[in-house]
Amino acid sequence: MIDYKVIPGGITAVEGFSAAGVQVNIKKAKKDMAMVYCHTPARAAAVYTQNKVKAAPIVVNAQNLSQGEAQAIVVNSGVANACTGEQGLADAREMVSLTAELLGLESHQIIVASTGVIGVNLPMDKVRQGIKECSRKLSPDGGLDAAAAIMTTDTYPKEYAVEFELDGKKVVIGGMSKGSGMIHPNMATMLGFLSTNISISKEMLKATLSHVVDETFNMITVDGDTSTNDMVAVLASGSAGNAEITTMDKNYHAFTKVLKEVAAHLAKEVVRDGEGATKLLSITVDHAYTVKDARRAAMAVANSSLVKTAFFGEDANWGRIFSAVGYSGAEFSPGKVDIWIESEAGSEQMLSAGAGLKFDEVKTGEILARRDINVKIDLKVGDKSATAWTCDFSYDYVKINADYRT
Amino acid sequence: MIDYKVIPGGITAVEGFSAAGVQVNIKKAKKDMAMVYCHTPARAAAVYTQNKVKAAPIVVNAQNLSQGEAQAIVVNSGVANACTGEQGLADAREMVSLTAELLGLESHQIIVASTGVIGVNLPMDKVRQGIKECSRKLSPDGGLDAAAAIMTTDTYPKEYAVEFELDGKKVVIGGMSKGSGMIHPNMATMLGFLSTNISISKEMLKATLSHVVDETFNMITVDGDTSTNDMVAVLASGSAGNAEITTMDKNYHAFTKVLKEVAAHLAKEVVRDGEGATKLLSITVDHAYTVKDARRAAMAVANSSLVKTAFFGEDANWGRIFSAVGYSGAEFSPGKVDIWIESEAGSEQMLSAGAGLKFDEVKTGEILARRDINVKIDLKVGDKSATAWTCDFSYDYVKINADYRT
Repeated sequence: MIDYKVIPGGITAVEGFSAAGVQVNIKKAKKDMAMVYCHTPARAAAVYTQNKVKAAPIVVNAQNLSQGEAQAIVVNSGVANACTGEQGLADAREMVSLTAELLGLESHQIIVASTGVIGVNLPMDKVRQGIKECSRKLSPDGGLDAAAAIMTTDTYPKEYAVEFELDGKKVVIGGMSKGSGMIHPNMATMLGFLSTNISISKEMLKATLSHVVDETFNMITVDGDTSTNDMVAVLASGSAGNAEITTMDKNYHAFTKVLKEVAAHLAKEVVRDGEGATKLLSITVDHAYTVKDARRAAMAVANSSLVKTAFFGEDANWGRIFSAVGYSGAEFSPGKVDIWIESEAGSEQMLSAGAGLKFDEVKTGEILARRDINVKIDLKVGDKSATAWTCDFSYDYVKINADYRT
Repeated sequence: MIDYKVIPGGITAVEGFSAAGVQVNIKKAKKDMAMVYCHTPARAAAVYTQNKVKAAPIVVNAQNLSQGEAQAIVVNSGVANACTGEQGLADAREMVSLTAELLGLESHQIIVASTGVIGVNLPMDKVRQGIKECSRKLSPDGGLDAAAAIMTTDTYPKEYAVEFELDGKKVVIGGMSKGSGMIHPNMATMLGFLSTNISISKEMLKATLSHVVDETFNMITVDGDTSTNDMVAVLASGSAGNAEITTMDKNYHAFTKVLKEVAAHLAKEVVRDGEGATKLLSITVDHAYTVKDARRAAMAVANSSLVKTAFFGEDANWGRIFSAVGYSGAEFSPGKVDIWIESEAGSEQMLSAGAGLKFDEVKTGEILARRDINVKIDLKVGDKSATAWTCDFSYDYVKINADYRT
């Protein structure tokens, strides 16, 4: 593993990045517009929701970002600008052009994102005001304000930053994310924004982001629903002074490893703060034939409502875990599978070669009483692994998602 | 549509079928063993869970039923005989051989099923006693007892029967099903058993059952989890006196249509009685390119926890419905889609050509207050349709699945 150090802050922990978060009452009494600005031109890459129903900002970014450059990100929360037709596209484009004008940039250098209510048009007078205020308040200390302003019903802002050395140069990676928010009548949206000072080509930045997101943000699930607005973007200023990474060399892999740590942390925070969550569950599948098999099996377990309610009840229900692996579509042989449940309180094996074990109920109860639980599933047929993260499924999930009308 | 009439009873509504349900304390204070017997040799077909982790009775049936003949069904509830290794297979085979011996049949004429706790061996002394008691109590009036004995935590027994005319002969179809039961530490198992007096070849019986199950039992979901024990079987005695159906002719299609009505009724009853359910939701997707697309879209909506909690809250959250269609994998064009929500209280359009409508909140509230709700999704790109059935997602779902330890 590469040696890296966690440092204070988030998206603005990287020198040359400023941010702001302001309140313009798109939501009630909470910050609801954020801006991130890189003082020098930066390489940029983004990945978007695979949902066929794409919100307007997703469509606009896909057009603008094709040159692989960007210098600013503008985000509103409260209204998702999804299912809003031509007006929605025009509004997203206006967010881009106004931000570009105020920061002296071109439209193709602006990334735009929205999260919140679906099917409602943006209150553009408030949005314009928010963009103007953000552009005036941009500051190297504004990261936390920005992280707060992109929240919907997240209960806390999520940011993270690390530094490490690459050929004697200090490389910094910062980021913020938001998750399982929910305001009537909308859906959860996952947003992740990353900043770094590394020097890297557009192509390599795109490659590393895709790879990292597949193993982190794409391996989390709160309720299995993919939003219309999901996106993760990264800006790389290039000021670290390292020789530009242009191929998948040693330095590319070192950067990818640390970027994955940052993305995994931010992704896990989304799950930890999932709607109604009381536990963070890590599901690791080892010795699968293929990475795809390992991911399928891990995600099937992570998405199972039966598994998630069992962990809420602190019940060692290995049958539900094994059954979810069974219907996941992964190739394996049921008679070979081992399953363990682990936490800081210890480790207990539930299943050996496909048959249930008489396990220690008391010890298992102690393991399950912890907040962070690991499920290890060993398929024993190949050499590939994957980990998925999810939260448990509590009364409060139902309450948050059903009760806001009453 | 073929004219058919609902008649009283279930699996024994067909002349020549007897059944029994008895209590031998595999579960506590409830009937837990059932038997169905056809007095004459019958054609038989069955479809099983696609879960790679298959319970012992599923494995045994797949071997025995290859000849397409059966004359009896033996079922226990309380213990699923899943993940029980070689002993489990031996126990399932003993259930078969003892039933065969007592009824004077061959082993390959017996269908065996189990539902209940996973990872626990069958209490074979009780099972043997139950098989003996059932064989003595078989009666043309025993259908309801059998339907009760296959329940786990179903709240009521599920049976249904219809009759219709085919070339002047009276054809009867009966059946029973059980669903979303749950006893620590296990999972839901769906079982469906159908009886009929029609004369039909093994090949055509297998074909019609596969077709019908794909559109009924395979289109229901309570929580998206596929059990290790799921199965649907049909016995056809041939005593109706119709000319044996041997090709996919007019009579084959007529029988298939009525069989589908019976299977759909029994499948919907499983969902209506789903764990914690307060509403039955029918999700119909029209004008898809392919049946596969229509099914995918309907099942994605039916499986969405966000959609299901919204209906529990009587919230017209069309954004979640549209988003689920979007990530379903179905081919469609978001800008064409219409969505309606309907019940006996009326019909209200939510989405037109991909954009949200200002709908009547009061009228929509009345529509959503009913127990049976229909969601209509018109993709407007092809001519294929599918319907999925699910229930809403309530506090009680979480309670039933998390709280039994406390």
